[in-house]
Formats: sequence, C-alpha cells, structure tokens
Amino acid sequence: MITVDYLIEETLKKKNPSVIGLDPDISRIPDCFKQNIFDQNPLQATATVIEQWNRNIIDSIYDLVPAVKPQIAFYEKYGSYGIHALENTIQYAKEKGLLVIEDAKRNDIGNTAWAYAQAHLGKVETITEEKYSSVSVDFLTVSPFLGSEGLIPFIQICKSNGKGIFILVKTSNLGAQEIQSALTAKGLTVSEYLASYIAGQADTSLGKYGYSAIGAVVGATYPNENSALRKIMPKSYFLVPGYGAQGGTEQDVMTCFNSDGLGALINSSREILFSHTTDIEQKNISKTDYCNRVREATKYMQEKIYFALKNTCPNMLY
Amino acid sequence: MITVDYLIEETLKKKNPSVIGLDPDISRIPDCFKQNIFDQNPLQATATVIEQWNRNIIDSIYDLVPAVKPQIAFYEKYGSYGIHALENTIQYAKEKGLLVIEDAKRNDIGNTAWAYAQAHLGKVETITEEKYSSVSVDFLTVSPFLGSEGLIPFIQICKSNGKGIFILVKTSNLGAQEIQSALTAKGLTVSEYLASYIAGQADTSLGKYGYSAIGAVVGATYPNENSALRKIMPKSYFLVPGYGAQGGTEQDVMTCFNSDGLGALINSSREILFSHTTDIEQKNISKTDYCNRVREATKYMQEKIYFALKNTCPNMLY
Repeated sequence: MITVDYLIEETLKKKNPSVIGLDPDISRIPDCFKQNIFDQNPLQATATVIEQWNRNIIDSIYDLVPAVKPQIAFYEKYGSYGIHALENTIQYAKEKGLLVIEDAKRNDIGNTAWAYAQAHLGKVETITEEKYSSVSVDFLTVSPFLGSEGLIPFIQICKSNGKGIFILVKTSNLGAQEIQSALTAKGLTVSEYLASYIAGQADTSLGKYGYSAIGAVVGATYPNENSALRKIMPKSYFLVPGYGAQGGTEQDVMTCFNSDGLGALINSSREILFSHTTDIEQKNISKTDYCNRVREATKYMQEKIYFALKNTCPNMLY
Repeated sequence: MITVDYLIEETLKKKNPSVIGLDPDISRIPDCFKQNIFDQNPLQATATVIEQWNRNIIDSIYDLVPAVKPQIAFYEKYGSYGIHALENTIQYAKEKGLLVIEDAKRNDIGNTAWAYAQAHLGKVETITEEKYSSVSVDFLTVSPFLGSEGLIPFIQICKSNGKGIFILVKTSNLGAQEIQSALTAKGLTVSEYLASYIAGQADTSLGKYGYSAIGAVVGATYPNENSALRKIMPKSYFLVPGYGAQGGTEQDVMTCFNSDGLGALINSSREILFSHTTDIEQKNISKTDYCNRVREATKYMQEKIYFALKNTCPNMLY
C-alpha cells in the first residue's frame, strides 16, 4: 500500500490526524531516563538515553496516532551515535505500526539531491551489485530554496516508491515572510508559486482516497493564508507545525483540512513531550508518571482537534 | 586563531583559493578502492571504502589546497556508518592541516537550528555536566528559506566560536532564479536581500585581514550578478560552486574576488575526483595512478585560477 493511503486509514481508524514530534532535547528529558549509563562515552551515552526515551514514548502513544515525526537535528547533534539512535527509533516505530515522518528539511540539486532522496526514501548503491535501505522513512520534509530542480529527485523517488514529502511552503515562524512572501516572476508569492507547483505534481500521484503524498508544510499560525493554500493544493497532504507551544490553536488549523476531515497532519512536540515545567519535576518524575502524562497529553490533543473537526467539516469521514 | 584568518593564511601560503569537494559517489569511485572488504555488511563496507578513498585524496592534495568540502549527502546515504566515515574523514583532514567546509545546507528555526549549529560548529549538551564536540567543522553551508530567524543561531555560534558559515545566496543551478530572484518587500531580489543581511552581520565579525566568515554561496555561473553581490558584501567570504563540471570558467569566477585576490573559495568536485571517464578506466586504474591524477588535476586548477587572478587583481597579495 502506498504511504498516503496507509496514513489515511490509520487516521480514520485512530480518529486522529495529529502526529507527535520525537524531538529529544536532552536538557529537558527527565532524569529518570538518564540512569545507569556508565560504560559509554558521553556522546554515545546520550544517544542511548535518547533511544530509550523514544521507545518509552512510542510505547505510550502508538495506538493513538498515525505517525511520529523525529526531528533529525536532535540526533545529528550526537554524530554517528545519534544517527544510530535515530535508525533504531525509526525501526521500532515501524514495528509498532507507526508511519515515520523525518523532519530534515534537506535541500540540494543534481546527484546530491538524489543522494538525499535515496538515503531517506529509497535504497542506496553499495559496493555490491545490490541496493540497500539505509535510514528509509515514509515521509521526509524538503526545503525548496534551490527551486524545482532541487525538488524533482525527491518527487520522482516518491512516485516510484510510494513514499511522501512535505515541501516547505509557509513555515510557522514570525520571520517566514522575509523570503516566502517575495513576489516571483509570475506575480505569485514564493509560497503560492510553490503551492501551484506542488498541486501539479500531486495531480499525477493520487492514492485511492484521492490524496497525494507530494505535500506541503504550512504553519498553524496563518489560518487565512492556509485557507488559500488549501484551495491551490486541494489534494496534497499538509504537515502543520506551530500548534500548541508555537501559538496555533485547533481553530487555527481547521483551514488546513478539507471538508472530509482529511488532508492535514497537525504536529505537536514540546507540549506533549515536555509538560513538566519545573526543574524539580524534571528531577523527580518517574518513568511511569512521565509516560502517562505523554499519553494523556496526546489524547487531549486528539480530543480537541477531533471535536473541532466534527464541528467544522460537513463531510467528516470519521 | 579564528577560522577566516587561518583560511586566508593558508590561501596565501599555498597560493590557492580553490577547495576540493569530497563527494564520494560510490558508483564512480575506482574499483581499486573496493577490494578486500568481506566481513562487513554492504552499508558498512561501502562507508569503509569511502573513508579509505577520502584518506587517499587528502594525502594527495593536503599541501596544495587550504580546505576540503565534504558533501554530507554522500555520507548520510549510508546512515550511521556513513556519518562515522565522515567523522573520521574530518578528523584526518584536520590532522593534515586542512580546513573543513561541511556542505550540508542545513536550515530550521529556534531550538532545532541551535541543535544543528551546535552539532556542526560547536559543542553539544550531553547527559554529563560537560559539552562535547561531535561532527564539528570549520565552515558549514546554511540554507535561508526560513528567513533570518533561521540564520541567527548559526551566526551567533560563528561569532562566539570563531567559526564560519556560507549562506546560500545565489546557487549555481539553472532554476535558481525561481525563488532567489523573487522580489522582497524592500524591492530587492531574495539574493540581494540576503546579501544585505549577510553584509550587516559580516561587519560585526571581521578577522585581522578585514574579512568575515559570515559568508555566502554564489554560483560560478553568474559572473555579472556576482560582481553586484561582491559590492553588497565586500567583506564576506564567498564559496563558489559551479566551476568546471557545471560550466563556470576561471574568468567567470574572477568577479567573486576582491582586488587583493581574496574573498572567494572556488570549489571543484567531479572534475578533480572523477577524471576517469570510461568504465574500463574505472575498472583498471591503480591507486597510485588515480591519486596522481587527482593531484595533477588539483594543481592544474590552482594554476588556471592563480594565473587569472594575477591578470585580474591589481592589489594581489600572493
């Protein structure tokens, strides 16, 4: 089954279009996860803690959400040890039936872009005759600064392997407009230009539910603009950061969905992962209490978004 | 010594402002490097070949160039094995006195951008009280699609650690203009807007030769526009891809330099690394012959660029 169809079926089954970021900011991971690592160097030990923390989170939420979204920067911090922890995390998430969205914002051109696309969404050449999977995930985020030439390798691999990408169109940060609102030769903003391009690619890669995995990142913090972007890209899946800690509410993200309640994935990371707000809590909380909090926060987010969708989407499918 | 000053001193000493890309495209690495790897899985074996190939290249050119530029995509392809090969390559290049420019085009905002900046240009938090270096290099390429908010963490780390970045301003590909020529609110193109921003940051981070390591990537394929960008950013170092295989000539890149013959680094990868053009050559060439070719190609590039500089720069310092 191609990725976008599996995503939709899990969303319908779990009644949840939200995903949890796996952003292991080591300074905020509770102390209970940092015990008994004596025989490793500090980088390796930290990567081990991250992997164990991820496994605990996945165990707490795998039946509630369709996907997890590891942010690769927090793994890359620890070099090859960190990437190894990421590989094991991806493997574990897949074993639990979760889709994996790797938030890497990769970007380049030519054979370099192909190398990234093969690494994250396909198989790579080796010194043997055969190709092998490396850090292969279901979805990858991609940054479009180099233009469509830099996107084509990712899009082609998605089409041939049934995988997905979310191309940055309108990011959730305050200063996003500096470049993303500039006017292109055709009189469109950069965001609109990218949206049109993505819509054209999406039309030729639809799954059985009429959606495409050639998708877009649009921030939760722009409800009006997202409504316009939704119209330009009716069939593309949206990945929506900026909910929760960054200020976007469940009402704000409603414009990212179609009338069937599909078409968007709302991400939350910090609000789910780091609800312990004081140093004392971080020091004293037990694994069981921490995991329960993560699960409850995930459920609470599902309920809020599901309730808003029920009240907003006339043709809600779930 | 801060990185930009060391870079200038090595450029003066070696009479060479060119750098060699370490882009291990495994399908083009000669067969002589692929022997006797029996006991490793294919991903690990390929990473081992890449590391050995890199060591041979570094041995062949370390006295000729100020820096090498590994393209991380070709290492990321092989997951944690590939990143381990990159770490060892970086370490080896540093031991040989070379500066390392990591071409990673990283981009994000907030604590994610900080994570990337710490990983590549600084030290990272661990579960111990101390911070440690991970894949730390001298220069990193950064992509600016998220606006200045996404650049600030990298710039701050450069300023505090004496490191450098090259921010994508005008890339060498044909379709670069799609986004990079769009008009921002102030009537500047995206490239000009970024150049102005970089110039402002460069002014507050000058080394003893009057140059800043808050730099820009500008493609060799736009001599006229580069002349204008040079005027906007007189003190920033430029990293210039697109020379050689991508069509830029030594005359094209002259507009990237100041009249002292400094201010730009010209990169070549494929023309230096893969001068064997037929399958038969790739199969039969010996390590010694291959390394000699890499060294000769590096010398030839140095001679062509140095000759052009001597004829172009009235205040040439070397």
